Amino acid sequence: MDRITMEHGGGGRATGELIGEIFAREFSNEILSEMEDCAVVLGDERIAVTTDSFVVEPLEFPGGDIGRLSICGTVNDLLMRGAKPRYITCGFILQEGVQIAQLKRIVRSMADTAREAGVTIVAGDTKVVEGAGGMYINTAGVGFVGKGVEISSGNSRPGDVIIVSGSLGDHHAAILSSRMEISNTIVSDNAPLHEMVGSLLREHVAVHAMRDVTRGGLATVLKELAAGSGLLFEIEEEALPLHPQVRDFCGLLGLDPLYMGNEGKMAAVVDAKDAGRALELIRASRYGKDAAVIGRVEDVRGQKDRGKLVLRTALGGRRALDVLEGEGLPRIC
Amino acid sequence: MDRITMEHGGGGRATGELIGEIFAREFSNEILSEMEDCAVVLGDERIAVTTDSFVVEPLEFPGGDIGRLSICGTVNDLLMRGAKPRYITCGFILQEGVQIAQLKRIVRSMADTAREAGVTIVAGDTKVVEGAGGMYINTAGVGFVGKGVEISSGNSRPGDVIIVSGSLGDHHAAILSSRMEISNTIVSDNAPLHEMVGSLLREHVAVHAMRDVTRGGLATVLKELAAGSGLLFEIEEEALPLHPQVRDFCGLLGLDPLYMGNEGKMAAVVDAKDAGRALELIRASRYGKDAAVIGRVEDVRGQKDRGKLVLRTALGGRRALDVLEGEGLPRIC
Repeated sequence: MDRITMEHGGGGRATGELIGEIFAREFSNEILSEMEDCAVVLGDERIAVTTDSFVVEPLEFPGGDIGRLSICGTVNDLLMRGAKPRYITCGFILQEGVQIAQLKRIVRSMADTAREAGVTIVAGDTKVVEGAGGMYINTAGVGFVGKGVEISSGNSRPGDVIIVSGSLGDHHAAILSSRMEISNTIVSDNAPLHEMVGSLLREHVAVHAMRDVTRGGLATVLKELAAGSGLLFEIEEEALPLHPQVRDFCGLLGLDPLYMGNEGKMAAVVDAKDAGRALELIRASRYGKDAAVIGRVEDVRGQKDRGKLVLRTALGGRRALDVLEGEGLPRIC
Repeated sequence: MDRITMEHGGGGRATGELIGEIFAREFSNEILSEMEDCAVVLGDERIAVTTDSFVVEPLEFPGGDIGRLSICGTVNDLLMRGAKPRYITCGFILQEGVQIAQLKRIVRSMADTAREAGVTIVAGDTKVVEGAGGMYINTAGVGFVGKGVEISSGNSRPGDVIIVSGSLGDHHAAILSSRMEISNTIVSDNAPLHEMVGSLLREHVAVHAMRDVTRGGLATVLKELAAGSGLLFEIEEEALPLHPQVRDFCGLLGLDPLYMGNEGKMAAVVDAKDAGRALELIRASRYGKDAAVIGRVEDVRGQKDRGKLVLRTALGGRRALDVLEGEGLPRIC
């Protein structure tokens, strides 16, 4: 077999072979090897639950692929609530014609990323639909939430410091370059953030809110955090970390890095007293070396400032930022 | 807005409106209203985790729709391990052009089915892809597994009785009729099986293994249970429950109901001493009135009988049944 056919979706022998030869080989663990439709695993008092579907095109791109993305996205969503990611489920929707060689690379990449992030793939499902060799992957994740951990978008307080864990727009710029066949050295930042979040929690840094920066970019994420807390978020244009190649790329195409998606960056709202320590810990972690303090959460003086996000520009101006308008770049994740 | 556009997948304002006006309205609960990318909920010592994607065509069919199916499928997978279903995540992959009115009906159907099954939708995700108004839904589920509950496909024992909870092939025949535009009264059996499984567990019936009958049909499911236990499964052709219309439909088209999918039926392997009680409880439950004892698990005498499924035909013959060969009916669930 070198391509997926409708038979692989029938639930019979061909489906079994696909699972045995491709998925089980890479994902194998004690739980999956029970070959049940549902996994029974150890739980905990408080659990975090999330899901994400991945429809990125192309399936493989500089610095990553849909498989790595599908693990990172769900792992990062769990981390943003302060959970320790534990279990992952994956649902594959394969179009007829998917090349088996490519599927194998993507599945291996998922297995590698799951190992890196310390999660176990405990259940899966495969469907086959008509089409031309594309694929979608859904992952859901379960994590354990430690006692006393309370991180959520409503928890920001006046005086808190806003940190971003690294340079903006890398994933978006890599996908776009790939689609436009522009040759450059930009690579996607798709990565699991367990190391930086793990150190923040272990060192009891007072993190009030966290969000990973994905579709819609940093502006959308911070605007949602501002709206969730009813406070005023102010960020400094000059403080935003940006790779020179991405800066040039954006300049050339008239793109705003504040609305471009990453897949391995987060924004954290941290108590001012812990901001220095938080920055140090993030910078010391894998994928965090370019972290920067980019702004503050301010108290609201007038009603018009409630839930607002303001950018202080390099020239000293103030510009209110809203969530992304329009479609942005489709199929980025 | 009357149709989905790429903008609804951008992660910005249009995505927010879609969530607010369609998903939040039907799925609203305290956890979802926190509007986080990840839910934090109460856990338990042992949890069950599963996932399933749904790609059925047509999206709406006699007796159900992709929304109801997406809740039933995952709820039933949790139940088959003896878990009490609790949380559901849903990932929507919408093609451009999906009619908003249809999406609303499907989302309402999911909400109704979730209420019926007693599960809470705690997290979701929406992506939009190119296409022509189709949609895929992935659900993942988390359930709690009570102390001492050990139900898995390897647990069948010689002497156990095999029960099927109702008539075979209804869902498959309904989907096929709908696609072939054959007018008949066959309706899909898509339903959550929490009531029958709940009574079996509550009454401490010695259930050793359970599987819901989906893609691949009863033969595939029982063959997998036989293989999982290494024992010989024998079923009686004359005992198989079948609606007269489905029987006629199969006769006409040359289909074998043993390989046709259901979406609201299960096979249970029960200790012989409890078989009568199990049958009674299933028959007394919603969706279980046509339940029947259809066979037994036999000890293996020779190596060649290990993990085998045998059908005793109406004429007294014996026919070995394997898992489904070929694709069966594509996009049935």
